[in-house]
Amino acid sequence: MRELSVKTDSKIVLLVLDGLGGLPIDPSGQTELEAADAPNLDSLAARSDLGLSRPVAAGVSPGSGPAHLALFGYNPLRHVVGRGVLGALGVGFDLGEHDLAARINFATLDESGKISDRRAGRVPSEKGAELVENLNKNVKLDSAEVFITHEKEYRAVAVFRGAGLSEALTDTDPQRVGLEPLPVKPTDGSPEAEKSAALANAFVEQANEVLADRHPANTVLLRGFGMNPALPSFEEIYELDAAAIASYPMYKGLARLVGMELLKEGEGIAGEFETLRENWDRHDFFFVHVKPTDAAGEDGDFERKARVVEEVDAQVPGLLDLGPDALAITGDHATPAKLKSHSWHGVPFLLSSPYTLPTAESFGERACAGGSLGVFPGEEIMGLLMGHALKLNRYGA
Amino acid sequence: MRELSVKTDSKIVLLVLDGLGGLPIDPSGQTELEAADAPNLDSLAARSDLGLSRPVAAGVSPGSGPAHLALFGYNPLRHVVGRGVLGALGVGFDLGEHDLAARINFATLDESGKISDRRAGRVPSEKGAELVENLNKNVKLDSAEVFITHEKEYRAVAVFRGAGLSEALTDTDPQRVGLEPLPVKPTDGSPEAEKSAALANAFVEQANEVLADRHPANTVLLRGFGMNPALPSFEEIYELDAAAIASYPMYKGLARLVGMELLKEGEGIAGEFETLRENWDRHDFFFVHVKPTDAAGEDGDFERKARVVEEVDAQVPGLLDLGPDALAITGDHATPAKLKSHSWHGVPFLLSSPYTLPTAESFGERACAGGSLGVFPGEEIMGLLMGHALKLNRYGA
Repeated sequence: MRELSVKTDSKIVLLVLDGLGGLPIDPSGQTELEAADAPNLDSLAARSDLGLSRPVAAGVSPGSGPAHLALFGYNPLRHVVGRGVLGALGVGFDLGEHDLAARINFATLDESGKISDRRAGRVPSEKGAELVENLNKNVKLDSAEVFITHEKEYRAVAVFRGAGLSEALTDTDPQRVGLEPLPVKPTDGSPEAEKSAALANAFVEQANEVLADRHPANTVLLRGFGMNPALPSFEEIYELDAAAIASYPMYKGLARLVGMELLKEGEGIAGEFETLRENWDRHDFFFVHVKPTDAAGEDGDFERKARVVEEVDAQVPGLLDLGPDALAITGDHATPAKLKSHSWHGVPFLLSSPYTLPTAESFGERACAGGSLGVFPGEEIMGLLMGHALKLNRYGA
Repeated sequence: MRELSVKTDSKIVLLVLDGLGGLPIDPSGQTELEAADAPNLDSLAARSDLGLSRPVAAGVSPGSGPAHLALFGYNPLRHVVGRGVLGALGVGFDLGEHDLAARINFATLDESGKISDRRAGRVPSEKGAELVENLNKNVKLDSAEVFITHEKEYRAVAVFRGAGLSEALTDTDPQRVGLEPLPVKPTDGSPEAEKSAALANAFVEQANEVLADRHPANTVLLRGFGMNPALPSFEEIYELDAAAIASYPMYKGLARLVGMELLKEGEGIAGEFETLRENWDRHDFFFVHVKPTDAAGEDGDFERKARVVEEVDAQVPGLLDLGPDALAITGDHATPAKLKSHSWHGVPFLLSSPYTLPTAESFGERACAGGSLGVFPGEEIMGLLMGHALKLNRYGA
């Protein structure tokens, strides 16, 4: 891809409705997308290439990290990105090559030292920010610097900066109340992991002292240790000047990981599309991330998920007015309301360009299953977009 | 494949309509193949397995080299064949394992040493042959032999034969008029590439002297340096005694590269099928290459491309009368008239044998998209043909 990519004036939009893939509640019924009243998407589908994409592997439900890496054209089995890394990038932390990141939850310890609330009563964001400031001021480690950045409410991110760190570490969060926090342990025998575990445990110890009288936020739980995987950027691979419009930190983090510029999103779905319009002339690739489809699926709310699709549908004419040369509308994975969780099912995929072979009259999982792209790995999406935008040289004589 | 292949009496035909894959001009319309009035292909499709094949990778438009390697079952990303190699094999040159080949264009230099015509006014073939003879007689290199073979008009092929040569070389052809020819440069730091670059530059210098008064053909441009990739032959991999019927040098070259015997083709498409009939008893695999579909696509001539399909359609009954045990009809890649070039789109694929699972009533891209073979890599075609011809042993107990 690197050898074939060429810089041109054409523009690509990758519109991701998080968790778009769905299932009928009764097998004979319709999926969320099929049930949605989405005339603009349907009429676009009738002029588009359709297919069902598979994010990671047969039967495997991907997390948001691997699912987006696949969407961006990176092999999600080869490139593993710790949740801490996504968190750090998501809050805008400039993660260096040797930095070790972890997610922090402020939490509550009872008098016996057991966790009574893994979210510290969902402390408000204002309070969370103050706690973070407090930690940054008072925690000092011997062998590394530590930077804590607040995310939202009870959530923050810690980044350890020093020589010879490793991400081969276990979490302190036991994922259940009524248990004591776990010590961080190395998962391999390397001296780097030993050192990093000691560092993380020293951090927790000091944080506990600093937070001792801040009940309910009197401790921190650490999880998702990870280091920057140093992925080659969109610029390097595709010669694209890519921008991202996403309202949730993790997706911003994923976009930054591959070198996309983060655009300040507006309010809600309409606001994201407004941002797209305002920045249309400044980039040649736009990743637009819509979260509420996934949230509705996770809540098991079939109707709400369909309504989010309808809300996006209303934005389609404006999007098409911008004149993208290649436009993909898809999800990162399936989140069927029926399952109330991410799933392994095929993800509906629509690609609009002047060079398509339409096969159906509507946008839906079954229409996509019979499409000209068939069932295909999500990792191929970027190649398809680059081809349809005429941004790839011919391969071989 | 090598371990499973068995020699049997069954016969396979791989009929390639170059650039067969197409697109509707308007998305709601028909493709070239769908629009063609091809009753024999349609009725064959109704008894065949159908699918859409992908030659190289998602979004990637393949050149003829990689596209045919995939058709023949070789991984086109692993096996790279320089254009010079295809040219040499295409003119029937017996390319040794260590030979270095390059394409030659006779071209015109103006008085200031800049290229004024990259094709030397398209010198007629007779004149081109005389120029080649002249070069062969008068150019003598110190460290290697050089053989020049005429192809057609202004085109020829140079083969350098000597120890320690390398294909890691840049072209002299700047691909534009008004520029000076470029010196050949090594693209890696190896002594072989240094030596080969010096050799090629010495060749150009001598050729310029020999051609000095032969305006408009007063220089040569070299491009596509390549060495024989020494692919395992069809005989070795498939135990097939394979023959090729192709009218264009490059496709003859590709066939020779995998050890096929070149049969003397008759006149036009009908002549190729006549050759097939005449040689039917002598081989158990036939690659038949029909070029004009691609040429029509490259010209953007939708109607002409459909008419070429119709011309092939008229040959289908005669072909079936021969009784091939497994017959594939497909393209090497797509060349939609709409794009006037090779493209990345799926290639319609039809496989006729007694052991098929038909899914449609006609041969076309959309019928193939919904076929029992789905969308699949072109590299798998040989395996399918071998299976349908009952030439593969069971794998495992």
